[in-house]
Amino acid sequence: MAFQFNGSLETFQHDTVTHHTKDNSYWFYEKSKESFPGQAFGLEIVDILYHTKTEFQDILVFKSKTFGNVLVLNGIIQCTEKDEFAYQELITHIPIMSHPSPRKVLVIGGGDCGVIRELIKHVEDKSVESITMVEIDDMVIKLSTEFLPQMAKYHNHPKVKLTIDDGFKFLRETREKFDVIITDSSDPEGPAQEFFQINYFKLLSNALNENGIVIMQSSENIWLDIKYLKELLLKASNVFPNVEYCQCYMPSYTSGQLGLIIATMNKTVDLTRPLRRFDSCKETSLFKYYNHEVHHSSFILPTWARQYLG
Amino acid sequence: MAFQFNGSLETFQHDTVTHHTKDNSYWFYEKSKESFPGQAFGLEIVDILYHTKTEFQDILVFKSKTFGNVLVLNGIIQCTEKDEFAYQELITHIPIMSHPSPRKVLVIGGGDCGVIRELIKHVEDKSVESITMVEIDDMVIKLSTEFLPQMAKYHNHPKVKLTIDDGFKFLRETREKFDVIITDSSDPEGPAQEFFQINYFKLLSNALNENGIVIMQSSENIWLDIKYLKELLLKASNVFPNVEYCQCYMPSYTSGQLGLIIATMNKTVDLTRPLRRFDSCKETSLFKYYNHEVHHSSFILPTWARQYLG
Repeated sequence: MAFQFNGSLETFQHDTVTHHTKDNSYWFYEKSKESFPGQAFGLEIVDILYHTKTEFQDILVFKSKTFGNVLVLNGIIQCTEKDEFAYQELITHIPIMSHPSPRKVLVIGGGDCGVIRELIKHVEDKSVESITMVEIDDMVIKLSTEFLPQMAKYHNHPKVKLTIDDGFKFLRETREKFDVIITDSSDPEGPAQEFFQINYFKLLSNALNENGIVIMQSSENIWLDIKYLKELLLKASNVFPNVEYCQCYMPSYTSGQLGLIIATMNKTVDLTRPLRRFDSCKETSLFKYYNHEVHHSSFILPTWARQYLG
Repeated sequence: MAFQFNGSLETFQHDTVTHHTKDNSYWFYEKSKESFPGQAFGLEIVDILYHTKTEFQDILVFKSKTFGNVLVLNGIIQCTEKDEFAYQELITHIPIMSHPSPRKVLVIGGGDCGVIRELIKHVEDKSVESITMVEIDDMVIKLSTEFLPQMAKYHNHPKVKLTIDDGFKFLRETREKFDVIITDSSDPEGPAQEFFQINYFKLLSNALNENGIVIMQSSENIWLDIKYLKELLLKASNVFPNVEYCQCYMPSYTSGQLGLIIATMNKTVDLTRPLRRFDSCKETSLFKYYNHEVHHSSFILPTWARQYLG
């Protein structure tokens, strides 16, 4: 099934899209009065590729002038073809390379399938044996397959078990245990709301094998609402004795960076350094953003943020 | 002398300022069709504080909703009160802490006086003995003193020798030698054009003491024009046998990051690690962004950029 936008950029109406008459350009502006008041990131639009409102969220896909195709959920950029690999690689390879034997992996969310693409590299390397993905909104997968083909190319891979369901509900009901759980969700405003609460961290810990590792996008960075970020880290620490925070630096996320929270019940492992690493030749052939030095440096914070987050 | 803007936000006309009628908000948008087409960074304006066109450039100062006061030269953000310390600290402390005895320091540009503020910390620590600053546009210093008082508080310090002149001309004529030279300029479009050419690197090397270190803002980062960045690094390498590249991560610069080029004639020193460091208590009291771990991690690049830049 192919998706087609029935309309024109000229007549398309959306809160995030502004027409500039001076040079007849159309721009997407990411703004949020609640999450990041007073600042905006803009991308020039070449074409609207698709727009729909599902049961769960507003989904917009457009072709940008310089960032390739862009997926937007509820007005917030989820990924652009230009820089998506940075986030996908960091949220995947940091936990995988920190785990001695990451055989069973669960992905909560991840509808754009970029994390799956990264995990398949470890399937091919024979460390990961099975991938379960639980995405609430089937439409995100369908649109990614259509418009982000370099990301969504492995959701039909034989090692991937795809479930369309609420990740929170799935975790409450499952009896399976996993070595790594990656929460690749949208921000707390919308269907991912429950992922930023203490009960979610409890469900995550219940679904982990011994030495299991969880990682999630925090929807924050140190320059935005660091107070909220600290509260989120405290919620994680309430359940996990070993919690760390790292950042991914890429232009299409608010402030040019996005924080990830990584945690494990194992008190002795140092998550800020890879437990396993490939030789540099293989590392370079597999990854564009991640390497063993990037792994560690992603955890190094400016003094004021390190102090505040404790 | 106090500066006052004679006008209102409502009637102010400037290429970078847009009025949004929907919520009656005024936004500054940083855009450049040449340097970073298709992307924009926006800050909501509370008030215009000053606007002038000098012999050298267009200077706009405004009060933003969430980033404090903002200084803009030729449409490009130079600093905001919220995050200026990140850049000022990195461009200052990386060369200073990489030098065994940085007694004489030259600053080219730096009119907002943030680098001077950081250097005074080393004057108080008795490592830096004299600071020469050569800024082409007196008005930048005056407006920074008025509207960025936390940055521009030491330009009258007895150890600071301030010269209003073209930095390129100053370097061509001076017979003085320096231990550290910091080029804190605006971008190549405008009066800083000459700072991004091979002749400038030659002038810099001529004005260095043995083991001297230079650092400059590159006006680039790895996500923008990496080809141009590589060319700039090659120009530096044509003069200096030891050249490194690091990045500062902060929300108000394009893509949330800005690259710095650091170089020395000394082939054996590793500029990516501090040669000297304070104990962590003193380090924390002196600096908000810089620390010895940030020093090193600023040089760690994603694999694709490391490969491309060689």
